[in-house]
Amino acid sequence: MDYSRFIAKASEVFKASEIRELLKVVEARKVISFAGGYPDPQTFPRESLARIAYEVILNYGDKALQYSPTKGVTAFRETLVRYLKSNGVKVDSEDDIIITTGSQQGLDLVSRTLIDPEDYIVTENPTYLAALTAFRTARPNIIGIPIDGKGMKTEVLEERLKELKSLGKRVKFVYTIPIAHNPAGTTMSPDRKKHLLELASEYDFIVIEDDPYSFFVYDEADVTRLKTLDQEGRVIYMSTLSKILSPGLRVGWILGPRQLVDVFERAKQSMDLHTSTLSQYIAKEALERGVVGETIDKAKRVYRVKRDAMLSALSENMVENSWWAKPVGGLFLMVWLPPGIDTKAMLPEAVDEGVVYVPGASFFVDESGKNTMRLNFSYPSVDEIKTGVGILGRLVKKKVGKT
Amino acid sequence: MDYSRFIAKASEVFKASEIRELLKVVEARKVISFAGGYPDPQTFPRESLARIAYEVILNYGDKALQYSPTKGVTAFRETLVRYLKSNGVKVDSEDDIIITTGSQQGLDLVSRTLIDPEDYIVTENPTYLAALTAFRTARPNIIGIPIDGKGMKTEVLEERLKELKSLGKRVKFVYTIPIAHNPAGTTMSPDRKKHLLELASEYDFIVIEDDPYSFFVYDEADVTRLKTLDQEGRVIYMSTLSKILSPGLRVGWILGPRQLVDVFERAKQSMDLHTSTLSQYIAKEALERGVVGETIDKAKRVYRVKRDAMLSALSENMVENSWWAKPVGGLFLMVWLPPGIDTKAMLPEAVDEGVVYVPGASFFVDESGKNTMRLNFSYPSVDEIKTGVGILGRLVKKKVGKT
Repeated sequence: MDYSRFIAKASEVFKASEIRELLKVVEARKVISFAGGYPDPQTFPRESLARIAYEVILNYGDKALQYSPTKGVTAFRETLVRYLKSNGVKVDSEDDIIITTGSQQGLDLVSRTLIDPEDYIVTENPTYLAALTAFRTARPNIIGIPIDGKGMKTEVLEERLKELKSLGKRVKFVYTIPIAHNPAGTTMSPDRKKHLLELASEYDFIVIEDDPYSFFVYDEADVTRLKTLDQEGRVIYMSTLSKILSPGLRVGWILGPRQLVDVFERAKQSMDLHTSTLSQYIAKEALERGVVGETIDKAKRVYRVKRDAMLSALSENMVENSWWAKPVGGLFLMVWLPPGIDTKAMLPEAVDEGVVYVPGASFFVDESGKNTMRLNFSYPSVDEIKTGVGILGRLVKKKVGKT
Repeated sequence: MDYSRFIAKASEVFKASEIRELLKVVEARKVISFAGGYPDPQTFPRESLARIAYEVILNYGDKALQYSPTKGVTAFRETLVRYLKSNGVKVDSEDDIIITTGSQQGLDLVSRTLIDPEDYIVTENPTYLAALTAFRTARPNIIGIPIDGKGMKTEVLEERLKELKSLGKRVKFVYTIPIAHNPAGTTMSPDRKKHLLELASEYDFIVIEDDPYSFFVYDEADVTRLKTLDQEGRVIYMSTLSKILSPGLRVGWILGPRQLVDVFERAKQSMDLHTSTLSQYIAKEALERGVVGETIDKAKRVYRVKRDAMLSALSENMVENSWWAKPVGGLFLMVWLPPGIDTKAMLPEAVDEGVVYVPGASFFVDESGKNTMRLNFSYPSVDEIKTGVGILGRLVKKKVGKT
């Protein structure tokens, strides 16, 4: 039968991604992948989590296997509050937290509750692709603000806000990944954080702070959260256990002003009732028994070495007039190649040579950044990083010769 | 600060439920609850699941704790296909299945991809409240079709379809819970199933078959699925492990035509990336090791006794001119009280006397059914059922005296 009338609109809203389809095909082949965003499974605390899961089900199964509150298991949210506080995140009460099915659901919740069609929202340019995808389903106007080594250029943001104001328009929220940005690897400077919050107050918008990475930075870095600096209740803070325990559990959270969290709760109720109760019980125990802390220590050790290997390999192999930020944390960096190089056009050749990356354009609000590529360093081995970056370096050199 | 401009629309779309707020308050008190929809935790196979979780994390942790495909873990979908086939559900390939974060996400996926504002959709009247909530976020026109002891009155549906056609309107889908309906406890007769599919073909609509209960019916009953009878690819079938293993795992699925499943997959990608990998690995093992089968056997034994206790108590205690269907399965039945009795107005008195139920009106598309109440029999004990129904019987008798 013909399904077209049933899915005409949805097919437009939820587009198939050319890149994703390519990566699916590539996954099956033996290539070095800088494309994914997977944690290294050697950081997973298997023994500890196996024991925790066993005990939790056996001892608390009546609750851990049962339906649970939409907002999240209360005891887990209490534990989470203590954990966040001890890591410098300002939080008053577990009532300000809602547990989400991964950070992705946090992005979807923001999209469904805070964006009306034609609203103006702001992101860094480039920004996290899956955030763009989630926001776009609500059909806003997205303004991309360029970044440099100090994160979002807030002086450019200020100019754009002035322009909008002169047109009678207001921004609803600014979405930012201040620490170890995905894809760019940059970290926002303290001055810019301060400036961003001043602008939020002056122009009356909300700041969505997406913070998956600040718990495991590899260098000395100022990870003070916007949430902690916020005096006016303008910051919605979201994070996840995906990188500091296990992504497979799908446990993230949003911490925000109570009135907004209440709306998120009502929306989540109709989205999936609640996040896996078992995952929440496991996460609670993992936090309380220090398993998250141990995972973080291991992740830091493993990822610092890999990051450094990638930075060295890039320095050795990349052509002049390339640029990348040294990420203080996270899993990614982005390489800006000389203008004229089209990383999407180059990808099939790279795959043929045995290495895959994500062409950067899709991270850009305006599809600019055709000369950029995002490289993941958490999943490949150090040897793969050296070999893979070498291959990319040679390929780019050939291209530069031709431009 | 004032958040009203940020959440004006969302507050309207995702309404606070008066009933839910009441039930939250009641939960803290010691009352007999017929209000929830919780499985009896004594049906949870704690020992088996504890062992499975331990082994899965220890032996397959690299995968079970990692990100996994949006559509679901392939090996789990393969196991699920075998399970469904052996239970009489027609399914060709694991590619026709997408794993959802509980059935609720299935409803949300249907709502977000298949409903455009002002579309016409059909449900039974009454129908599952959380389905109504999910569908309403997409702002359709909802047509409610009355039910009787044989399920949806498809002859009434046919009339409505004719009317709509004469107005140049078409229905997008009919949502039905054919077996052990929630809230009504009714089961659709084979003739009505056949008629519904004929109408689907004639009037070109999709049928959403929500089937959480058919795997554990308590009596001889024809549980042939619409999906199995469907010859044209018109049926989207959804079900869940919530009642036959554990709701806390949040594992459901949609089985449907590939083109629709592809759209669901793209939508789910931006909603939560994927369902808990660990839950899927546990579910896979539980199916393969027969743990789901054992849970079903136990659930049947436990719930049959409770259902019978509730039916007896109702017969003994309810006033004349009340009606309820004998449910062949599921967790619920609905009592239609004599007209004039307002179960919502009566609820505070019932709570004072120590028993709580869900007033039926919110299950009705048109908020009719003010004289109905939904009673859950899976969670309370047999003694609680006897006592609680006794209390309700006396309360209703007093009310009837006054109408």
